[in-house]
Amino acid sequence: MTVTDTSAYETLRSKLREAAVFASVTSVLSWDQETYMPAGGGEARAEQMAAMAGLVHERKTASELADLIAQAADEVGSDDVAAVNVARMQRDFDRETKLPSKLVANIARTSSIAQDAWKAARASNDFAAFKPHLEKMLELTRQKAECWGTPDDGELYDALLDEYEPNARATEIEAVFGPLGNQLSELVAELMDAPNPPSLEPFKRPVAISAQAELGRHVLSAFGFDLNTGRLDVTAHPFCQDVGPGDTRLTTRYTEAGVGDALFSTMHEGGHGLYEQNLPKAERFGEPLGQSISLGIHESQSRFWENIVGRSAEFWRWLTPTVKDLFGDGYAHTTADELYRAANVVERSYIRVESDEATYNLHVMLRFELERALVSGELSVADLPGAWNERFERLLGVPVPDDARGCLQDVHWSFGLIGYFPTYTLGNLYAAQFTEAMEAELGQLGPRIERGEFGPIREWLTDNIYSQGRRYEAGELCERITGKALSDEPLMRYLRGKLRPVYGL
Amino acid sequence: MTVTDTSAYETLRSKLREAAVFASVTSVLSWDQETYMPAGGGEARAEQMAAMAGLVHERKTASELADLIAQAADEVGSDDVAAVNVARMQRDFDRETKLPSKLVANIARTSSIAQDAWKAARASNDFAAFKPHLEKMLELTRQKAECWGTPDDGELYDALLDEYEPNARATEIEAVFGPLGNQLSELVAELMDAPNPPSLEPFKRPVAISAQAELGRHVLSAFGFDLNTGRLDVTAHPFCQDVGPGDTRLTTRYTEAGVGDALFSTMHEGGHGLYEQNLPKAERFGEPLGQSISLGIHESQSRFWENIVGRSAEFWRWLTPTVKDLFGDGYAHTTADELYRAANVVERSYIRVESDEATYNLHVMLRFELERALVSGELSVADLPGAWNERFERLLGVPVPDDARGCLQDVHWSFGLIGYFPTYTLGNLYAAQFTEAMEAELGQLGPRIERGEFGPIREWLTDNIYSQGRRYEAGELCERITGKALSDEPLMRYLRGKLRPVYGL
Repeated sequence: MTVTDTSAYETLRSKLREAAVFASVTSVLSWDQETYMPAGGGEARAEQMAAMAGLVHERKTASELADLIAQAADEVGSDDVAAVNVARMQRDFDRETKLPSKLVANIARTSSIAQDAWKAARASNDFAAFKPHLEKMLELTRQKAECWGTPDDGELYDALLDEYEPNARATEIEAVFGPLGNQLSELVAELMDAPNPPSLEPFKRPVAISAQAELGRHVLSAFGFDLNTGRLDVTAHPFCQDVGPGDTRLTTRYTEAGVGDALFSTMHEGGHGLYEQNLPKAERFGEPLGQSISLGIHESQSRFWENIVGRSAEFWRWLTPTVKDLFGDGYAHTTADELYRAANVVERSYIRVESDEATYNLHVMLRFELERALVSGELSVADLPGAWNERFERLLGVPVPDDARGCLQDVHWSFGLIGYFPTYTLGNLYAAQFTEAMEAELGQLGPRIERGEFGPIREWLTDNIYSQGRRYEAGELCERITGKALSDEPLMRYLRGKLRPVYGL
Repeated sequence: MTVTDTSAYETLRSKLREAAVFASVTSVLSWDQETYMPAGGGEARAEQMAAMAGLVHERKTASELADLIAQAADEVGSDDVAAVNVARMQRDFDRETKLPSKLVANIARTSSIAQDAWKAARASNDFAAFKPHLEKMLELTRQKAECWGTPDDGELYDALLDEYEPNARATEIEAVFGPLGNQLSELVAELMDAPNPPSLEPFKRPVAISAQAELGRHVLSAFGFDLNTGRLDVTAHPFCQDVGPGDTRLTTRYTEAGVGDALFSTMHEGGHGLYEQNLPKAERFGEPLGQSISLGIHESQSRFWENIVGRSAEFWRWLTPTVKDLFGDGYAHTTADELYRAANVVERSYIRVESDEATYNLHVMLRFELERALVSGELSVADLPGAWNERFERLLGVPVPDDARGCLQDVHWSFGLIGYFPTYTLGNLYAAQFTEAMEAELGQLGPRIERGEFGPIREWLTDNIYSQGRRYEAGELCERITGKALSDEPLMRYLRGKLRPVYGL
């Protein structure tokens, strides 16, 4: 390959960087909207967001890009890194140009109304009021999927999945989720009858929010999240928002009597943040090689730092002295073991976002099955509550009390996020499987974690995942790192290995 | 006039609104940069700002606008409001298109380097190190003025002034500043020999920052600044940043031992904020009729609320009970009169931004004289320190100790802000003259202020100034409201009437 600065490839890179700069402006707007924007600024913000979205779409679908991509593909030939970069650019361009602007605008308008309707319906436990909106959103989402096209080896749902998890197939996911679901249901049933269940009480003592924030920052810094190129703020729903090279922002939420919630959210978003901070963005902003692979791989990082690190016995042995220092008298006699056990309570609850490591994936599988059936037409929106309640009881072993705590609990479907839910469980699966590979190389993580030695862990992740950008697809990356396709076994080994002893089994 | 929704006038309005929406995105970026952006985000932010500035310039100079403006001018005919709107659009378009993009980019680059050089030079009191940078910036600023063109009845400096104070002329400003300067020098000399000078001590007691912030919010709300469509944050240098309809943000800075600084900054920026919040932006965002008139008129509002209201005896009679409540023991025995007197201390100081109502304008006049002479070529950059020191001593009556406290103190010239300084004093002049007109209509303001009745005052300002947008130019507005051209007399009456009694004269 001979690529000069005036090559089509370099021109293309700079055009994509330009589009990414405009997109990153939108990230500032959206972060600001959730954190500091005064309430009265909402209308003007919507106008700004719409204008910027139009501009970014225009830049990403400019017809000159088609020619540049074709020329760049010739130029880079089979040089593997650049060739992969161009192939991914082609993929993104195709997807972006396949959606008619009219449909995009229609989805934006309809989903904005559907979200409001969802909020009201959830508050009043009134599925019937939400039903027409969900029907409209489902129809528009199907139209979107049809624009992208059903893959030859797949189904219509895969076209949606592809947006969040490139080239994933529902059948492959089903093949892993199936056995995982059965084993998880069994494990949860076993834990519910166990002799020595842990208590959540150590996380329920009142602690000043300033002390909780200090603890969160302490943990983030120890993990290697750079607060000089990042922030931690407070929002109603925690998130990680990347704002461009050198600027990655996290949020969490504090309650005076719920120490665990804020800390685990902080570690979760911190995991996303570590991925973002260690992507090669300075040189490759806007290019596939500077971007994260998929939502599943992104989620594997948040789950790794939140759960595999943050809910381990060794983590709590490391952190407990700091907890005692910062949280004062209420924690004077608390042991690391009590906090570790509190971090691993398993409960049969109705709400996904409040659920634990063992039941969480059951909540996700339910949504995956149902949304797949909605897209294929096997399930109608009218039958959704019944189907939800029936399958929920089968998976979780308890009946659903009402739709507000059932099929109305999540915002996702109201704005057309279908194909998104499975990435949460994919994240858990990848995290466990990557951890086994990491331990095969670095040795057991426990002793390092207990000494607060997070550097080598983060470096391993940076080398193997973060620094690679979109060099590999999720499945490829998994094969490269672990030598195997994605499997339910590492996650089940991890959960059984930890939770059975915690419960005295 | 018959203007339909598909008229050129309406198309033009919507094009300008679109450009303003993009410009308002830049406002979010710049507010964020000063408040919450992590240090590491600076490079990416510069890239975002440059991309957005290019985009906004492109939209504001689009060639289709020239035709639309011409057609709109025909359509609206002599209908006065729309005709004024279109005339101002023409003016803005002409100014925006007269600057070659190359020159704009060159100024941006050079000024960024010059600002760094200025910071270093001020820190080390080394004018020689700053001299070549100032020479370059002066040369580029002159080129800019030449692109805009010297007005027939004016001088090259007027072309710069016009950017901040449309259609103002240096000769007219000189005609007011001349007598004002003489009278102020005399007044200051008189006060310095007065028998009963006030003490600053009541503002020097340590007060928790949270209590100071609460006091600031209390005053802002009482003035009618809507915190639901605005914010108050902390930055190194206080400012007011409008972010679009329904979103106006203020900043201030707190020091534990300097209660006055934060409060007066808050009231000052609050005055700017009241103007922004009461412009007819919802319908007229991006149009002249939705914009503020000039920096001088904007400054008249910050000075009115900060000084004419906020340093009055009645204001302190109203606020002192709240000060006692919020500031605690240190203020238990403080009287309203002591605080009023502290708010009106006059001192011969070297630094403009730390100066008081009487000396402030002398600092401004000095800069006006010198920058005008720099632009005309009568004064060379090499001779600036000598000229500064000589005139400073003549105006303020004390010798300048060094350039850091002399001609190196302000950042403005380093980024080419020439023609900007006089607007500060124009603000003081307009504020005093408008106040006399307001009192002729509403009666003395004192009794209302003492009762905390700020509503009628704000409404008068809204009717006469804020709601008018750029309907009138500054001079026209002054004639309309006060029946007279701008004069030094109201400001001198106000300052003498207040300060002589404070000093026991």
